Amino acid sequence: MQTGNTYDFRVEPQDVDFTLHATVTSMCNAILNTAGVDAQRNGLGVDALSRKNRSWVLSRLAVEFDRLPEQYTPYSIRTWVNDDGRLVSLRNFMLTDGDGNVFGRVASQWCMIDFERRTPVDLREIADVYLPLMSEEPSPCDRPRKVRAAEPQCTFEHRVVYSDIDFNRHVNTMRYIDMMFDMLPIETFAEPRPLRLDVQFIKESRYGQTLTVGLERQGDISLFEIRSDDGVAVCRASVEWR
Amino acid sequence: MQTGNTYDFRVEPQDVDFTLHATVTSMCNAILNTAGVDAQRNGLGVDALSRKNRSWVLSRLAVEFDRLPEQYTPYSIRTWVNDDGRLVSLRNFMLTDGDGNVFGRVASQWCMIDFERRTPVDLREIADVYLPLMSEEPSPCDRPRKVRAAEPQCTFEHRVVYSDIDFNRHVNTMRYIDMMFDMLPIETFAEPRPLRLDVQFIKESRYGQTLTVGLERQGDISLFEIRSDDGVAVCRASVEWR
Repeated sequence: MQTGNTYDFRVEPQDVDFTLHATVTSMCNAILNTAGVDAQRNGLGVDALSRKNRSWVLSRLAVEFDRLPEQYTPYSIRTWVNDDGRLVSLRNFMLTDGDGNVFGRVASQWCMIDFERRTPVDLREIADVYLPLMSEEPSPCDRPRKVRAAEPQCTFEHRVVYSDIDFNRHVNTMRYIDMMFDMLPIETFAEPRPLRLDVQFIKESRYGQTLTVGLERQGDISLFEIRSDDGVAVCRASVEWR
Repeated sequence: MQTGNTYDFRVEPQDVDFTLHATVTSMCNAILNTAGVDAQRNGLGVDALSRKNRSWVLSRLAVEFDRLPEQYTPYSIRTWVNDDGRLVSLRNFMLTDGDGNVFGRVASQWCMIDFERRTPVDLREIADVYLPLMSEEPSPCDRPRKVRAAEPQCTFEHRVVYSDIDFNRHVNTMRYIDMMFDMLPIETFAEPRPLRLDVQFIKESRYGQTLTVGLERQGDISLFEIRSDDGVAVCRASVEWR
């Protein structure tokens, strides 16, 4: 049985790279927007939570793409929640093209935080709206993995600028993914391969900081780590090319 | 009489900055996508032109915003063409909010180029489809101005990476606008003012080049110039804060 809600999209010109296929960043953008819209529809959007001084924070993300769709391709994203843990909400996504073929699977972990203390809050606090959403349907892929620290073979410095930041003045999730993929040789994108991406968001980074993006490549695995000025890891990720 | 075609939009979460208002870049993105969709609808899209070895290239852009709309605001863009010059096509846009109030006006100049020679082609070549589109309606703002060379008070270097480039492996128009606005102090955005932006696209820049973005501020005018490795200006712009 299919659970959750389904939202329709199309790959727009601004979503594609030089191969005319959607970028991983643009697909992640669509996925996270879907999370926001679906939470709002269920009375759990950031607008509703903010009235209680609460907000959602993405802590881990796992995405698997068999392929990336071409420009103007219609596709849909179905999303459902299936874990009633006390501190972590697990939101899943399935991406399907116009012919009904699944090409992407996503599992994401979110915490509800106290906006002032910046600490996770027990989800039983919103049990009345949250628990009825629980689905029996399992996640479509393995849960997001913990990513080990990279031992970078190359690094790149990036000063956080206006166009990187979101409404909180924190670096936008998509920009982290851009910064990491920008470290890869351009040929990586010329011949796309199926991939699994695991991202672990550790700490926020802010306007004016200088980030160092490190890359370690080991065979079919690319490991990334983004550190802030003070040497603290703010984000880690691994890409497994399949 | 209203001419041209109208397209509907909404300010999405990825379009706003920390003030929760749309960024200039996101509005320009919507404007240029509208140009592409409307040209296609009229049989003059890049897909149709490419069969004749032709393409559209944006040479100049002028945008005026009285204000920038807030997140989730619905708005519409009306576009029309009103100049039958031989080498430059003038495409206009009017941006209107859900209450029917105009908040943005745009005039843009495009050349049709020979894809291999990279030189402008006489528009009479496509007179049969192009001329019937001509409107009597004047442009909603002054035509894009030639921008003088800046004498930069500060500069910033930017290496062109994967996430900067478009389907041609050239730097995306939006990234130029991001690079320029990123030079401004963050307070500029905290208290938005009406503005007019003139951009002059001079030369393409490519993956792997290092660009130098220069800013000269003179009262209510900010002048920008982006130069490539070889010192050649690839893009100039001025912002007039009103």
